[in-house]
Amino acid sequence: MSQFGPEYIRAIAPYQAGKPISEVAREFGLDEANIVKLASNENPFGVPASAQAAMAAAAAELGRYPDANGFDLKAALAARYDVPADWITLGNGSNDILEIAAHAFVQKGQGVIYSQYSFAVYALAAQGVGARGVSVPARGHGHDLDAMAAAIDADTRLLYIANPNNPTGTFIPAAEIEAFLAKVPAHVVVVLDEAYNEFLEEKDQFESTAWVRNHPNLIVSRTFSKAYGLAGLRVGFAIAQPALTDLMNRVRQPFNVNSLAQAAAIAALNDKAFLEKGAENNRAGYRQLTAAFDELGLEYVPSYGNFVLVKVGEDEGAGARVNIALLKQGVIVRPVGAYGLPQWLRISIGLPDENARFVDALKKALG
Amino acid sequence: MSQFGPEYIRAIAPYQAGKPISEVAREFGLDEANIVKLASNENPFGVPASAQAAMAAAAAELGRYPDANGFDLKAALAARYDVPADWITLGNGSNDILEIAAHAFVQKGQGVIYSQYSFAVYALAAQGVGARGVSVPARGHGHDLDAMAAAIDADTRLLYIANPNNPTGTFIPAAEIEAFLAKVPAHVVVVLDEAYNEFLEEKDQFESTAWVRNHPNLIVSRTFSKAYGLAGLRVGFAIAQPALTDLMNRVRQPFNVNSLAQAAAIAALNDKAFLEKGAENNRAGYRQLTAAFDELGLEYVPSYGNFVLVKVGEDEGAGARVNIALLKQGVIVRPVGAYGLPQWLRISIGLPDENARFVDALKKALG
Repeated sequence: MSQFGPEYIRAIAPYQAGKPISEVAREFGLDEANIVKLASNENPFGVPASAQAAMAAAAAELGRYPDANGFDLKAALAARYDVPADWITLGNGSNDILEIAAHAFVQKGQGVIYSQYSFAVYALAAQGVGARGVSVPARGHGHDLDAMAAAIDADTRLLYIANPNNPTGTFIPAAEIEAFLAKVPAHVVVVLDEAYNEFLEEKDQFESTAWVRNHPNLIVSRTFSKAYGLAGLRVGFAIAQPALTDLMNRVRQPFNVNSLAQAAAIAALNDKAFLEKGAENNRAGYRQLTAAFDELGLEYVPSYGNFVLVKVGEDEGAGARVNIALLKQGVIVRPVGAYGLPQWLRISIGLPDENARFVDALKKALG
Repeated sequence: MSQFGPEYIRAIAPYQAGKPISEVAREFGLDEANIVKLASNENPFGVPASAQAAMAAAAAELGRYPDANGFDLKAALAARYDVPADWITLGNGSNDILEIAAHAFVQKGQGVIYSQYSFAVYALAAQGVGARGVSVPARGHGHDLDAMAAAIDADTRLLYIANPNNPTGTFIPAAEIEAFLAKVPAHVVVVLDEAYNEFLEEKDQFESTAWVRNHPNLIVSRTFSKAYGLAGLRVGFAIAQPALTDLMNRVRQPFNVNSLAQAAAIAALNDKAFLEKGAENNRAGYRQLTAAFDELGLEYVPSYGNFVLVKVGEDEGAGARVNIALLKQGVIVRPVGAYGLPQWLRISIGLPDENARFVDALKKALG
């Protein structure tokens, strides 16, 4: 149709975001106040009070451009993760980090590897630079690292791993990641997307920054949008050795992270009480949701994140049908048909009463 | 050095932002409160009160992702500019729009045209996709549209025009732009970057959206960072016909504009009193600065923006030398040696006392 743009751009099907509450209210004629959104793996507690205070202090200077170098936020991250500041790249959410990596390290025709059932932005970022995206079949609902290693060839430049994985919630233990990294050739950049890292129990935690020290081709990506509650502000970051970090900062837009996000992230980073409250709510909510799924006899994927993937029927139309039935009752969850999972829905863990609203609506939806 | 990334990425020299006040304070051992920043063409009045109120109202939902489709902001822009909402692309500042255009419409080896002495991001955006950047020699300090039209060839895909131009302040009258657009072949996308449009006097204003109606290859880019005072929040937008807009939205990051920026922009867009106060201050400041330059016998480029380009010496080291002398006195302006203007400095127009502080410091710097 259009005469403009490379063929690989015209072929992109844009990312489908979770429906905002206002949009569902418009479409279904509902009252916004009665809508429960469990669709985007957001923090049900919202922005921590510490971050709100930091934002208020920063508000006076909003007529100024943000600090393009993010001096204060990088200093806070450097202290927290024990790396030099020039190992850090700031992003407009970690979505920005994922795209910057493709932009900086891959050109048209080169290969980008990711897992089936992993985050949709990996394929989009590859497509955006005209790369050959390689989706490696999953093992169960998680990454098959052996198959991903086997898929690497001389043209491969980038490989994404989500751990825990979104939208399935699967987790790869540290030892398996380390063994995988040892096998990856030096010319392949690995982005380890740890957007849900903060929800892991202590026994599963590991300092991936230590791996960055040992692997010049590794980028660890983190976000403030999930556990830290700052999704609406947009801030994430990457940690990698200076050679990679330098190139990422060459393609990064100079003012990609707004001033309030920088200030809020510094406060949230050190708000351990907020993280603990969120983790505790998440564990309780996970038990609440999975108990209901067990009661209803619904299969679900054991999750290490703040969401659960649940199978709501056997036919190919099940996910879409139940999703609509939930929307009509004012409950927004995430259909994952675009991920090749048309029988499933992804439910973000909310507050106890939000989870209960969802369970009630689900029971009605299933008849 | 690095084995990673395409050659065209490794060749990028990153954008040099204006030094933040905090950075100058650190480097020169100064008190932040005594520093005057006239370096980034920001609004000296900061964020309008109307926008602050809108942000406060939106703050409760900051744990949620922003509306990826920017429904309310697009509706406000559509009403203001009398175009359908699907003619609008939202950007993380207009910097994002400029980069999205290169990303969406140009691939490696194709041509991107811009003017000598025009905004540095055009060349960076071209380099970021491996394009052949063509800098067309300026006429005086402004665009030579005839030479730019003559530079178009079969491989040209994108052409940037800044009007008014940054960093020189020159302006191209409407009739000349229209005549130019009539000559541009249909396969070349033209980005008309009007970041400083709101500072034009009424007689110079024109509805560039009317041109968009007549030219399927035209994108008009605007920002909330200058006249609207929202630089720290990051929001800009593009208006173009649906074929271009659709492709830009395929490469746009889904959550590129944060929630507070969307809310603030809606309020600022309709705050005519704030724009008028800013325009009045700008006219007075322009007279204040240029009177001082006349008194000092300094050449300057007549400006249509909120800044003035002034020649501070005849030798190649003049701009850098005077810049350092100003920094030591706590006055931040913008050296433009990287633009090929080493004898010049760009001074943003501030409040009357800020302008006076600069003039005093300049006199001392010049001896």
